[in-house]
Amino acid sequence: MTARVPGWFDPQDERTARAAWSRIAEPGDETAARVLEHLGPGPALLALYERPVRLRELAASIDGRRRRPGQPAPGAGWEQRLPQVEPLRDLRTLERFGGRLLIPGDPQWPQPFAALGARTPPALWTRGPVDLTMAVHRAVALVGSRAASPYGEDVAADLGAGSVERGVTVVSGAAYGIDAQAHRGALAGGGPTVAVVACGVDRAYPRGNEQLIERIAREGLVVSEVPPGSSPTRWRFVQRNRLIAALSRATVVVEAAWRSGAMITAGEAVSLGREVGAVPGPVTSAASAGCHRLLREGAVCVTDADEIVELLSPIGAAPAPARSAPASEHDGLDPIDLRVFDALPVRSAVGVDRLAGTAGLDGPVVAAALGRLQLRGLAVEGGGLWRRAPRRGAADPWSDRPAVRA
Amino acid sequence: MTARVPGWFDPQDERTARAAWSRIAEPGDETAARVLEHLGPGPALLALYERPVRLRELAASIDGRRRRPGQPAPGAGWEQRLPQVEPLRDLRTLERFGGRLLIPGDPQWPQPFAALGARTPPALWTRGPVDLTMAVHRAVALVGSRAASPYGEDVAADLGAGSVERGVTVVSGAAYGIDAQAHRGALAGGGPTVAVVACGVDRAYPRGNEQLIERIAREGLVVSEVPPGSSPTRWRFVQRNRLIAALSRATVVVEAAWRSGAMITAGEAVSLGREVGAVPGPVTSAASAGCHRLLREGAVCVTDADEIVELLSPIGAAPAPARSAPASEHDGLDPIDLRVFDALPVRSAVGVDRLAGTAGLDGPVVAAALGRLQLRGLAVEGGGLWRRAPRRGAADPWSDRPAVRA
Repeated sequence: MTARVPGWFDPQDERTARAAWSRIAEPGDETAARVLEHLGPGPALLALYERPVRLRELAASIDGRRRRPGQPAPGAGWEQRLPQVEPLRDLRTLERFGGRLLIPGDPQWPQPFAALGARTPPALWTRGPVDLTMAVHRAVALVGSRAASPYGEDVAADLGAGSVERGVTVVSGAAYGIDAQAHRGALAGGGPTVAVVACGVDRAYPRGNEQLIERIAREGLVVSEVPPGSSPTRWRFVQRNRLIAALSRATVVVEAAWRSGAMITAGEAVSLGREVGAVPGPVTSAASAGCHRLLREGAVCVTDADEIVELLSPIGAAPAPARSAPASEHDGLDPIDLRVFDALPVRSAVGVDRLAGTAGLDGPVVAAALGRLQLRGLAVEGGGLWRRAPRRGAADPWSDRPAVRA
Repeated sequence: MTARVPGWFDPQDERTARAAWSRIAEPGDETAARVLEHLGPGPALLALYERPVRLRELAASIDGRRRRPGQPAPGAGWEQRLPQVEPLRDLRTLERFGGRLLIPGDPQWPQPFAALGARTPPALWTRGPVDLTMAVHRAVALVGSRAASPYGEDVAADLGAGSVERGVTVVSGAAYGIDAQAHRGALAGGGPTVAVVACGVDRAYPRGNEQLIERIAREGLVVSEVPPGSSPTRWRFVQRNRLIAALSRATVVVEAAWRSGAMITAGEAVSLGREVGAVPGPVTSAASAGCHRLLREGAVCVTDADEIVELLSPIGAAPAPARSAPASEHDGLDPIDLRVFDALPVRSAVGVDRLAGTAGLDGPVVAAALGRLQLRGLAVEGGGLWRRAPRRGAADPWSDRPAVRA
């Protein structure tokens, strides 16, 4: 079977040809990518119209992979899509939504896609004011379960806001749960955020996130590798994950069940050489089981936006600031002073000799330590006898919860 | 100053001499350990009574480390302790509590202490029916904050019970919070459990855990490096952590603030070449901040007792069993079958040609995939037209939460 070459066709017009190929080839069709690379998108499309059998033979020889019995020949499904190929209509639809088509070589084409190799999409359908190249210069994918817990949703929103406040773009998939909260947090923090969707950018899926997706299209960027009108299929959801991982320097899984799409995205990030982070949660929560599995497999533990910045930074760059803990009065005492401090009674007062016996130190050492403790306000002396200085706000220095653990 | 050699003294009686030294030298006194190694415990004690200045000189030459100004000379405090040295009384006290003194060379002396080097205690004061050598053949330290959360306490008890049920001894510190719950879980699971305390084994500290400590002394083992009657000082708490780490093949921190004693124990485990695990928790909980810090520094994420067993096992031994997730009906479909399944309508029925166009695959491939889907009960045929098989328990296969993430 051969189809008539349509009137719009111009083999020199790479943009329109790529728009057509994004309708013909399913996401992740590596054979199609190799054929486009080999012939160029326009000539490849012409060949599909005029000599489909020869194109399949070429595809098989370029592809070279051995097929299992029952698997289709490379490019076997392309012809079946030809009746649906109307790239000019698709581009008009995109224009009506204020979108633009990006193809390799465009200034906005994301450089990080180079890592995808033959899994690079032929084109990207985008909607929104954000420059994709600028946005993904420093981007993190925040992904996770749709069946998120309130804890996971709160953390996703916090990380989304904290990331954009630190100049990091938030990439996610606009799904319910973690994805949506990550986008919402990013928008609340002033953007930018990029939603990679599995259907056409003219459609809002899932329906319940329609307002969110429309807002991302107004303030951020909605991106898809399938043309307007396309349905979100399971296959496209799975393939979409590779684009989320590829656009981001790191993928951070906020909450995920033991098996889930977010785990696939993390796997894609690993295979693309990107960093993977996981947010811990209660071990009693099934919603965190995937994150804990990732941590056991070597993902970096991420607890706040500073640690996301650290994850994105080249090795050797500034680490996330260390948390400070409220200092205890005896913090930083050297071992000798601590021993003398331990030996000092609270309610009575004793002489240096007695302290020396209790602490197991000789007299001059104890006297010197007492001087240092007095300077720090930890010891008080009266009539040659010493006791511990009264503690601020606590009657008993051996209360149940001193800073150093019992 | 020299003290009179007491009547009980017999330089050949190593056991009594070591009991005396555990009163004389503070825990972790490496100089004392080196002197005992050099002279033997009895002769070293005799020298301390008769020629304390010479012993200090010897200690300084053995010790060899440079001291900072204001630091005591090696062994400078030992003499001050001599008036309190009554090892026969201490041993009688221990006997009254049904305990026994262990010294290096005893069959029950824990072999893992070899890793402590000069930080090995001169003796161990123990109470309880458990054989220490047997107990620490396969032991995990479960440690954490006294200021534990209800979540942390629950997890500690679960891990304690789960560990002993898998033949693993639980070692901890009998403190409030995580330690106590780990011991309680171990006792509930049938023991064995070992409590390493910072005071004499005749004392119960903290008071609120008195019943727990007495039960461990009846069913497990209470261990201390300081003699009966000794107070728990901060110094001793800090030093005690090294014994907990040394007795255990792995230290697992269940909950810990950013800085805490449990973190010290984890650091000791690292320096002794033992494994370190950390239990994750909510990133919003300060009680888990130390655990997350450990995970970022390379600790193994531990979420259940199976993973503790894995942590204790030699590399290459059986890993913890993987969790199973409820399988989705389309799990395991190969990409072609998934594409055809995606293309199958739910409410209407269509022919193979139409499916080929939707799926972007050629007719024979679609027909073969339909056959496989039919075998799996996922597709139904009637009059040459195909549709998706009705799904068990769900009206819409594109409900919000399919197993593959959107």
